[in-house]
This record gives sequence, C-alpha cells and structure tokens, in this order.
Amino acid sequence: MTDSRKPLILVTNDDGVNALGIKMLIDAIRPLGEIVVIAPDGPRSGMSSAITAFQPLRVHALGEECDLTVYSCTGTPVDCVKLGINEILERKPDLVISGINHGSNASICVIYSGTMGAAIEGCIFGIPSIGVSLTNHAALADFTQASAYARVIAEKVLCEGLPQGVCLNVNIPDVQKVKGIRVCTQAKGRWAKEFYRSQDQMGREIFWLTGEFENEEPDNQHTDEWALANGYASVVPCQIDMTAHDVIQKLNHLSLQD
Amino acid sequence: MTDSRKPLILVTNDDGVNALGIKMLIDAIRPLGEIVVIAPDGPRSGMSSAITAFQPLRVHALGEECDLTVYSCTGTPVDCVKLGINEILERKPDLVISGINHGSNASICVIYSGTMGAAIEGCIFGIPSIGVSLTNHAALADFTQASAYARVIAEKVLCEGLPQGVCLNVNIPDVQKVKGIRVCTQAKGRWAKEFYRSQDQMGREIFWLTGEFENEEPDNQHTDEWALANGYASVVPCQIDMTAHDVIQKLNHLSLQD
Repeated sequence: MTDSRKPLILVTNDDGVNALGIKMLIDAIRPLGEIVVIAPDGPRSGMSSAITAFQPLRVHALGEECDLTVYSCTGTPVDCVKLGINEILERKPDLVISGINHGSNASICVIYSGTMGAAIEGCIFGIPSIGVSLTNHAALADFTQASAYARVIAEKVLCEGLPQGVCLNVNIPDVQKVKGIRVCTQAKGRWAKEFYRSQDQMGREIFWLTGEFENEEPDNQHTDEWALANGYASVVPCQIDMTAHDVIQKLNHLSLQD
Repeated sequence: MTDSRKPLILVTNDDGVNALGIKMLIDAIRPLGEIVVIAPDGPRSGMSSAITAFQPLRVHALGEECDLTVYSCTGTPVDCVKLGINEILERKPDLVISGINHGSNASICVIYSGTMGAAIEGCIFGIPSIGVSLTNHAALADFTQASAYARVIAEKVLCEGLPQGVCLNVNIPDVQKVKGIRVCTQAKGRWAKEFYRSQDQMGREIFWLTGEFENEEPDNQHTDEWALANGYASVVPCQIDMTAHDVIQKLNHLSLQD
C-alpha cells in the first residue's frame, strides 16, 4: 500500500541494480520516504544521457517490501528515469536520486556520467534531482560516509527543493574523514592519453578506453576538483540549459538573412 | 600526402558512416580542407556523450583519396572523436563537425543527441566544433539546403574560431526555402507520452521509446524551436561548463563544515 503522505523517491544508478553503491544509498535514505528503485540490470557506466532508440526495453520487478519496491530495466539510466515517471510510478516523485556511483563524476566527467544523466533527466521533468558519486571505483569501496552525506543532502533537497532547471552533482572523496560540503563550480579539465592499444586473439588491433585526467585549474579553490583533493564533498549545481547566453551577442555575425 | 597548409577537419555523426546526411556533409565541406571521417559503423542515435568503457573499440579504414580519408569505428560518436584526436590524426584538427543528423536536435534534444555529443567532445579538446541536424528523420531526406548552410557556418568558424568552451548546435528546418540563420537560445521543453507499450512474440511486456515534444516557451522568438518553426536555421552556442553559476550563492545553505 502506498502512503501518499510520504515523499516518493525514485532511485537509480549506472553501475546496475546489484552494485554496492545503490544498496548503500537505499539503506541510507529509506527513512526519508517511499522508495522506488528502477535501475539498469547491469553496468552502464559512461552512458551519459543516452536513450535506447532501436531496441525495446524490458522491466522486471525484483522485490517489494514496506515502502521499498525494486525494478531492474534493460536500458540506460535515463531510460530508467523515463520509464519510472511515464509508466511505473503512480505519481510524480518528489526526488530523483542516482548513485552512489563507483568513481568520481567531478569536472568534465559530469558530461560522460550515466549517474548524472539520470539526475539531469529527473531535472528535465521538473523534479529535484541529485547524482551522488564516491571517488573510488572499487566494487567493495567503503560507502559509509558517502551514504551519510547523500542522506543529508537528500533531506535538505526534499525540504527546500532546487531551482528550476538545476540538479546537483555530488561527489564524496574517498578519505578517512570527510571535512564537510562545499558548493563548487565544475573544474575545467580534460582527459589525455585516452587509449590502450592492444590486440585481440586474432592479432587484430583493438583500443581500450583509459586515460589520465588533467585538471586545468588546479589552484582554483572554488572547483569540485579542489574540494575533493582537499577532503571536502563537492556539490556542483548543474543546469540543463546548455546555452552559452553570454556569447550569443558575440556570435551574431553568424546570423544571415536570405 | 597530407597538405599541412590546409585546415584539417574531423567529420563524424551518429547515424553511421553510411548515412546520407554525412555523405552530403562531406561533399559540401570538401573544398574547405583535408577531411578525415571517423564515424560509427552503424546507427548510434540518442547516444548523447556516451563512451565505451567495457568493450574494446575497433577502427576500419574504408577508403582514401585526395584529401579525404574515411574510417568506421565500432564505438559511439564520442569514441570516434577521442580515437581520431588521440590515435588517428597526425595533428590536432582545426574543426570537428558532426552530422548532418537525420532529425532535429533543438531544445532539450541537445542533451540526448549523439551528434551533439561528438561536437561537445571536440569542444572539450579545445577545437572549434559544430553539430548539424536537419529536422527530417527520413533516410532519404533532402539535405541540399542543410549541407549548404553547414558549409557556410563551417567556413565562418574555420575563419573566426569559437569562444573557448563553446560549440555550436545547428539545426536546419525541412522547408522549401530556409529564410536564413538565427543565433538562438535552447528552448525550454520536455518529452511526454514517451513509451509505446507492446508485447514480444512470447507475450512479454516491452516498451518502445517514442513521445511527443512539448515546447514550454512557444512564443519566445529567441529560441531554436521558434526559429525552426518559422523557417530559419537555428544556431545555439552550447557550453561545456554545466555549472549553474547564478545559483551557487543560493545553494550555500548546503555547505557544511564538519
């Protein structure tokens, strides 16, 4: 039975429904409301805001107990959010929370992140949305602090909402004691040396994606990378309007009237 | 032989190397420089900025003639750009151009678009980058006007560059006579009624992604959707910094010092 007085929270991730990070997130936020989990049936790292255009999607009910229902989905993190809101949930959720991702989504990684793709999708629907990541890729990383911070931030967002068109990219450093939370900007950065060249069993050339992250503003204390490197959790407000409003005037020479 | 005095242009798309849109784009921009095409080996619509994390990538040389070399790649549009810049091109390209996409990438579609994922990736590398789309999904759509506009804009961008961290989302309306170019904002909008419920051959429930686009600001003449609906090509400058700088102050209540 649904208790409509409780907040409804849609949970997803990009590491798949069986990842430790999402289990720890669910445990941490269960007291906050009715939880519906719709998460990919396996890893979907690096899926960004990808949607499944050419294949049908399938949803499987995995379990239901008091105020917690879990589904897996054959699609991407964004597909999970779309299916949840369009087809599965009986009402619009009060919060979409994605994670806890195994690995950092700070700086430019926000663009590739399936975790953040799901949060951005929640935001497109006008729902307060959060992506949460721990800067440790290990399957058995220690999510204790990250899940506690996820709960604190989820509580605040449930209570106060978020500005329209803005979601949160939360990253927690993998340190012994997190020093607190800083609201940050997305650090300028890029990846370099991105491929490991190898050969398959037939001697044919293959490329594995890898790389080294280069922080282009390591001394900027306002950035997420600085916060994480200095033991703070970073919260970057991310907007779904990608328009570079301040350069529209500069580009008016591109205008053309036939 | 490479003529290093000519601009080097990396071309990709998300409809695959055999799509009509990319062929028309290549024909249109060939006079502008040395062209290297690295495009997916099949359709990758809706791939956003997805990267291939768990599978090896393969690249196949398809052909080489005067100032035109064509490769296909097993990965996503972003993988194509990364492979091109990291592994295939002998120098940094002067322009990355992606398209011409079969279908609109205006408004919120910029977020799901593999075409724009590739342009955003070029921009992350600090290269002037453009995504071009025609508002017609048909495989045999008429790309005559779209490719002419793509060339005009590519020429201007090659000549004048783009602001750092900004790429262009260009959409061309499928009309008899395009009226010109307008520099626009990304229209606020969302998709509704997104799934077609059906059954597979065993009677199991499946969901196909579909939907209706809802323009949330139909009267705003500054938007890409307005431009396209009124016969203009739209050019939206898109930034890779997703930070909502103007709300950082408002969110400072989330800051926490342990």
